[in-house]
Amino acid sequence: MSEENIVYIGSKPIMNYCIAIITSLQEKGDTVTVKARGRSISTAVDVVEVTKNRFLNDLTIEDIEIGTEQLESTDGRIRSVSSISITVKK
Amino acid sequence: MSEENIVYIGSKPIMNYCIAIITSLQEKGDTVTVKARGRSISTAVDVVEVTKNRFLNDLTIEDIEIGTEQLESTDGRIRSVSSISITVKK
Repeated sequence: MSEENIVYIGSKPIMNYCIAIITSLQEKGDTVTVKARGRSISTAVDVVEVTKNRFLNDLTIEDIEIGTEQLESTDGRIRSVSSISITVKK
Repeated sequence: MSEENIVYIGSKPIMNYCIAIITSLQEKGDTVTVKARGRSISTAVDVVEVTKNRFLNDLTIEDIEIGTEQLESTDGRIRSVSSISITVKK
């Protein structure tokens, strides 16, 4: 992939991320990778499904990867958190 | 797949599901599909990652699918909920 086109999922409303994906596909290229960690993983799946079912019916899911990332918490301890990357293509 | 070997993720502690996966792989066959809906999707990813990182390092992720299911809620209305299926192989 030449230019990585990524939407990170946090705690904003789902629609914000749907719009980010649609805008990104219009302006930056044919694929977008949606990334999330921890509890936001469920939201990432919602975002991709809503974008596909309501806005871009031609959207295809190219790849889904899950993994574990090491994060340093505020008290300096390292904790593991699950992650997901969903790559979609218009 | 001849016999479908499925672990459904709900609100029990993560370790319960890890044990279910390990037992299933010992007794029923080489692959298990881990399924979850809605908020439990994040837990499903945690369960697979913990099983792989702590108990079965050889576990490979064969396939990940996401989708939308229609559920009837208690008031009779239909609502959409996101789902995930993660197939792992020992």
